[in-house]
Amino acid sequence: MTPKKEIRIGLIGAGLMGRTHSNGYKRIGDFFPELEYRPVLKAVCSRNKESVQKFADQWGYESIETDWRAIIARDDIDAVDICTPNNTHAEIAIAAAAAGKMILCEKPLARTLAEAQQMVDAVEKAGVQNTVWYNYRRVPAVTLAKQIIDSGKLGKIFHYRANFLQDWTISADVPQGGTGTWRMDVDAAGSGVTGDLLAHCIDTAMWLNGAITDVSAVTETFVKERMHQVTGKVQPVGIDDACIFHCHFGNGSLGLFEATRYARGHKALYTLEINGEHASIRWDLHDMNRLEYFDHADDSIVRGWRSILVTDGDQPYMKRWWIPGTIIGYEHTFVHQAADFFKSLETGEPCAPTFLDALQTQKVCEAVLESATSRSWKETGATDV
Amino acid sequence: MTPKKEIRIGLIGAGLMGRTHSNGYKRIGDFFPELEYRPVLKAVCSRNKESVQKFADQWGYESIETDWRAIIARDDIDAVDICTPNNTHAEIAIAAAAAGKMILCEKPLARTLAEAQQMVDAVEKAGVQNTVWYNYRRVPAVTLAKQIIDSGKLGKIFHYRANFLQDWTISADVPQGGTGTWRMDVDAAGSGVTGDLLAHCIDTAMWLNGAITDVSAVTETFVKERMHQVTGKVQPVGIDDACIFHCHFGNGSLGLFEATRYARGHKALYTLEINGEHASIRWDLHDMNRLEYFDHADDSIVRGWRSILVTDGDQPYMKRWWIPGTIIGYEHTFVHQAADFFKSLETGEPCAPTFLDALQTQKVCEAVLESATSRSWKETGATDV
Amino acid sequence: MTPKKEIRIGLIGAGLMGRTHSNGYKRIGDFFPELEYRPVLKAVCSRNKESVQKFADQWGYESIETDWRAIIARDDIDAVDICTPNNTHAEIAIAAAAAGKMILCEKPLARTLAEAQQMVDAVEKAGVQNTVWYNYRRVPAVTLAKQIIDSGKLGKIFHYRANFLQDWTISADVPQGGTGTWRMDVDAAGSGVTGDLLAHCIDTAMWLNGAITDVSAVTETFVKERMHQVTGKVQPVGIDDACIFHCHFGNGSLGLFEATRYARGHKALYTLEINGEHASIRWDLHDMNRLEYFDHADDSIVRGWRSILVTDGDQPYMKRWWIPGTIIGYEHTFVHQAADFFKSLETGEPCAPTFLDALQTQKVCEAVLESATSRSWKETGATDV
Amino acid sequence: MTPKKEIRIGLIGAGLMGRTHSNGYKRIGDFFPELEYRPVLKAVCSRNKESVQKFADQWGYESIETDWRAIIARDDIDAVDICTPNNTHAEIAIAAAAAGKMILCEKPLARTLAEAQQMVDAVEKAGVQNTVWYNYRRVPAVTLAKQIIDSGKLGKIFHYRANFLQDWTISADVPQGGTGTWRMDVDAAGSGVTGDLLAHCIDTAMWLNGAITDVSAVTETFVKERMHQVTGKVQPVGIDDACIFHCHFGNGSLGLFEATRYARGHKALYTLEINGEHASIRWDLHDMNRLEYFDHADDSIVRGWRSILVTDGDQPYMKRWWIPGTIIGYEHTFVHQAADFFKSLETGEPCAPTFLDALQTQKVCEAVLESATSRSWKETGATDV
Repeated sequence: MTPKKEIRIGLIGAGLMGRTHSNGYKRIGDFFPELEYRPVLKAVCSRNKESVQKFADQWGYESIETDWRAIIARDDIDAVDICTPNNTHAEIAIAAAAAGKMILCEKPLARTLAEAQQMVDAVEKAGVQNTVWYNYRRVPAVTLAKQIIDSGKLGKIFHYRANFLQDWTISADVPQGGTGTWRMDVDAAGSGVTGDLLAHCIDTAMWLNGAITDVSAVTETFVKERMHQVTGKVQPVGIDDACIFHCHFGNGSLGLFEATRYARGHKALYTLEINGEHASIRWDLHDMNRLEYFDHADDSIVRGWRSILVTDGDQPYMKRWWIPGTIIGYEHTFVHQAADFFKSLETGEPCAPTFLDALQTQKVCEAVLESATSRSWKETGATDV
Repeated sequence: MTPKKEIRIGLIGAGLMGRTHSNGYKRIGDFFPELEYRPVLKAVCSRNKESVQKFADQWGYESIETDWRAIIARDDIDAVDICTPNNTHAEIAIAAAAAGKMILCEKPLARTLAEAQQMVDAVEKAGVQNTVWYNYRRVPAVTLAKQIIDSGKLGKIFHYRANFLQDWTISADVPQGGTGTWRMDVDAAGSGVTGDLLAHCIDTAMWLNGAITDVSAVTETFVKERMHQVTGKVQPVGIDDACIFHCHFGNGSLGLFEATRYARGHKALYTLEINGEHASIRWDLHDMNRLEYFDHADDSIVRGWRSILVTDGDQPYMKRWWIPGTIIGYEHTFVHQAADFFKSLETGEPCAPTFLDALQTQKVCEAVLESATSRSWKETGATDV
Repeated sequence: MTPKKEIRIGLIGAGLMGRTHSNGYKRIGDFFPELEYRPVLKAVCSRNKESVQKFADQWGYESIETDWRAIIARDDIDAVDICTPNNTHAEIAIAAAAAGKMILCEKPLARTLAEAQQMVDAVEKAGVQNTVWYNYRRVPAVTLAKQIIDSGKLGKIFHYRANFLQDWTISADVPQGGTGTWRMDVDAAGSGVTGDLLAHCIDTAMWLNGAITDVSAVTETFVKERMHQVTGKVQPVGIDDACIFHCHFGNGSLGLFEATRYARGHKALYTLEINGEHASIRWDLHDMNRLEYFDHADDSIVRGWRSILVTDGDQPYMKRWWIPGTIIGYEHTFVHQAADFFKSLETGEPCAPTFLDALQTQKVCEAVLESATSRSWKETGATDV
Repeated sequence: MTPKKEIRIGLIGAGLMGRTHSNGYKRIGDFFPELEYRPVLKAVCSRNKESVQKFADQWGYESIETDWRAIIARDDIDAVDICTPNNTHAEIAIAAAAAGKMILCEKPLARTLAEAQQMVDAVEKAGVQNTVWYNYRRVPAVTLAKQIIDSGKLGKIFHYRANFLQDWTISADVPQGGTGTWRMDVDAAGSGVTGDLLAHCIDTAMWLNGAITDVSAVTETFVKERMHQVTGKVQPVGIDDACIFHCHFGNGSLGLFEATRYARGHKALYTLEINGEHASIRWDLHDMNRLEYFDHADDSIVRGWRSILVTDGDQPYMKRWWIPGTIIGYEHTFVHQAADFFKSLETGEPCAPTFLDALQTQKVCEAVLESATSRSWKETGATDV
């Protein structure tokens, strides 16, 4: 066996995303054995020493830090993985780039377009490999959708629609701020469902269907005040609980997007559909291994939506896993992205979505929030990703 | 408008099937206006004078009778429609044939193979047009399945499976015998789910896949005693509450059938599936306007079960109705059969399933019940229908 | 049998809706026998004498007219049913009201708010019974949704979303104007999908969830020019091929609506979903006999969306039809509305949606089109229906 | 962190199951960190030195062997995991037991009941911990089904049905024997779908519903001859391509089972359904994270099958993984079983299904094959597991 080139990972943030990324790194050897590079779990950083030590023990990180600056300062770290709340992404990423580290940043890239632009500038100036964990691109069914669209089977596109429906914040007792609920705090998160959920929908949409050019949005905050875990006080809620927008794509199609945390009965129902002249595609995260596909070229009497169970070896990523008919889960999307990142080190290609790609999503998010505030259409300035 | 040739109907039995058949006759003019023959609702017969008069008023029958022999004796009746409990089918049909009446008989043809054979002999001797209301053949999706199979798209057939699941007799308080629950009384019904539900499954199966040649069955009566509505006493239950059998078809495929009235949660879940070398088909009555179809010839990466919404004008019967995407219901199957019956008077062809066709189903039912009793395989003697 | 009071119908328009309404009238006697009033198919009117005679023969109308004014002038007509293209609704309805006729008008009420207001004024002045055929309110599953919502099971409402997706005008060869395709001609139809499809969605939405107060919309015309069947020339297309809008309801919930005729693979996919604090509901027209219902009060480990097959006698309208598990179809919604109209003559209550109710939908449609044109939010002025 | 007690694994067989089991061991530390015992991947054995070395490198085994006896002879192996073809299970397991090794054996336990009995005798005599990888018990939705059934919610059980449908051997070009296709060779596999697929269905069924007491079966071999990879000759096929049986359970319910590799369109469609007096449950492997549940106690107008997405922390195993709404895959069932095995070392309890439990499944399989051969009912002699 040829010795692997080691990439020493410094993980910053030990929450849910710290777990999904760690799992991604740890599966590469088993399922992508041919890769020349391999990750080494060098260090994990979080502010609470006890809990980060427990995380390190569980996941096999060699060492811990409690200040992210220490991670960046270490010579034995090649790549920094940012899994902290959104309000820290820019500062960490810019520092990491300045230190010449590769960067893998959890989505959304930043709270604001301005922050995101600084981050792009930083990685471009530093010339470091970078990627953003918009993991749903690497659901095999979604990757297959991309292949089908790129093959031209859909023809001219008329419609793109997506939503991301959750229901976990309906209770007014859910607090904001602090561990676990920083997503409810506008200072930490930057926005509510727009940056958390719609950002995923937008990233996938622009990857599949090109740039969104202008938007008209509405947002709502259903629960106006919540207890803040840090201050201990009931404070106004600054985030958007729900956001809807319609838009135009550069290719002339109409787009429709919705995200909410108040859709009782839906846990993480990310769905997308694209309607073309000749064919259409649908997908949803709750049945993530299926792709629905309608092809008008089929004989008319036996024409119908096909339910494609994406588990065969000739479908994206699936030869890595088990046998036809047996499904994979949520965590595998992170394994795929980790593998593709390490592959990109071999090929020298960017690992999409890069910071620059994620900047386009940030442009749309910013336009969406501005449109909702001003009750008017906004140009996004986004380009194809 | 060319004057229509009138077929004067004498309906015997004014229950659920009396209603579905009457509705069938009454829709023909609106939806099959080109037919040369048209039904006239001449008389309806049932033993209770008050209720049959109410039925006649509601449905527009010109006259009533309370003795079925009077229907047969009338010169102004051309066709007798038998909707009474199973134990009367043979006597009525044989008398009607002797009187030269056309006969439309509700399924199952009879309680026993012996009765059924006498009925076949009678109509053949009399040379009268005859049909049996196995209505599910004329669900457009099922008729489409027949077209697809006959086109050869499935190739060699390996498997046929069907079930018919209900849950209406779970309570031990459901009585047997009398109006409404004669299906629970073995004397009136001949058998339980075998004649009531499996007979449907068998008729469709042999139409789609050829003769069933031998069977191995099991039956069960879960509630052993029930109050009898006629005698007022708690009496042993003689019917089969559930029946399962596997079998061979003449074409070498394996069959699997199940019916029960104890499948909590299912009201009338008649499902069928046929697996061939090249393609497969599935259907169920709860979503009766859909046909599921899998074609192995599709490109492998976009291959999947197609959900065909059978509502287009080029699909069976559907040009008669509304517009693509709008569905029809249970009652339409009887309209279709009525229309096909009147069409058969023009063409001089038999209107399948004829008594002779239904006799084949009766052979299988008889073999199934014998197999269950003897705990052994039984030959059916059935031929293709 | 008590003699029925006859309501003599004059049907104007002999197209698809002429057929669905006629069928509605003809089924009442069979399925709603207790009603005191019954329709008599007195006359049908359409400009082409030959085709209207054929229609009258097929459906059993006693007489024909080729000028709608003749229908209104006849003393032997009690109720006028308007099934003509949208551009004639106002003139016919106003004349019919002036003549003291009851009016049943196909939706949308009118092309414009101004026309609709005149129609409302006319029927109110005349004091004649009136209704608009927004038939989807009377899908049993939708009526059940109304009952569930009115029972308070959903609690505070957060979201309402609906769409109506078709694909029949994707080809540039589909003409505009004339018989069969007048819906493509802005002069005849008033608008495209907004009046044709969204009007349905809006009517149901305001019935279930109260008034829509303001809207922000976008429309698109994908095929810019089409041959006009009347002029024979290729002319600009004036209708909206697709329309999307988001909105606020008076109860504080957010709404999201979309309609298009360019959603490849969907024939008549009208779907709606409403998310409340405690429960949610979903429905779609392709599986119109099912209602999906999620109740957060269920035990957490067995909590899930319930697929309710709405075919039981204790569910709306279903005791009229067959047996549990057997479905009904599109046409039955018109039967239900016809029956409810005749019932309203007994009770003296309005038959919703009345012209006044339909005016509220018209207000929203007008605001939607204005919003799309001006690229700005519009107040609707609609009140609860 | 308390030091873990190491269990040194010797894996025999480096095919698909070698991979799933290895993955199971490797995930325990990350997802079940509290376990006192941890696996160490000490050695892997397969006859081809080159390929087993590659496997060891990929998965991280410390050493390799090419003779399974060497594994058993090693003092540094605590537990033997048997992933070889069925014809070797008995010999290896008996030797391993004699050597005092714990044993984890891939299913089915053996080719025949006689072999299985010897294996049970061996582990009982040796007193070694043992388990059989009937992994589907540990799909969270299936484990939840077990909890629901054990809670009594279903009441008296009437029906159990299961099938396992595949389509990978339809082509006559699929060979038998040798690597990859030993399941087609009766000498290596013992039987066809009965031992491979029905064994899974039977294990789950008896776990959920108690012992199967008697069976009536039919088998079919559709392709009679296939090329044998070892001999290079076209030879008769000895396995069952398809098998159907009905049966009685000890609790009085009826059972129905089917497995085939000729169901075009199905890759690994393992489905099960159980109908009780008060409630019913359905599950299928293609949507393995969902459980369908019907509860008759629900209010009648909103009663329906619930689609339960089993991804919440209060549902079996799911607190180990991600967040509500995000699914897991096939491989996780093996992780769960591995974790439960290591937990059993702490508690001293057996890790079900043990060899003795799997013996009951073997009894049913043997009775099924005998019934098919003799065309008669067979008693199984199985006891509850």
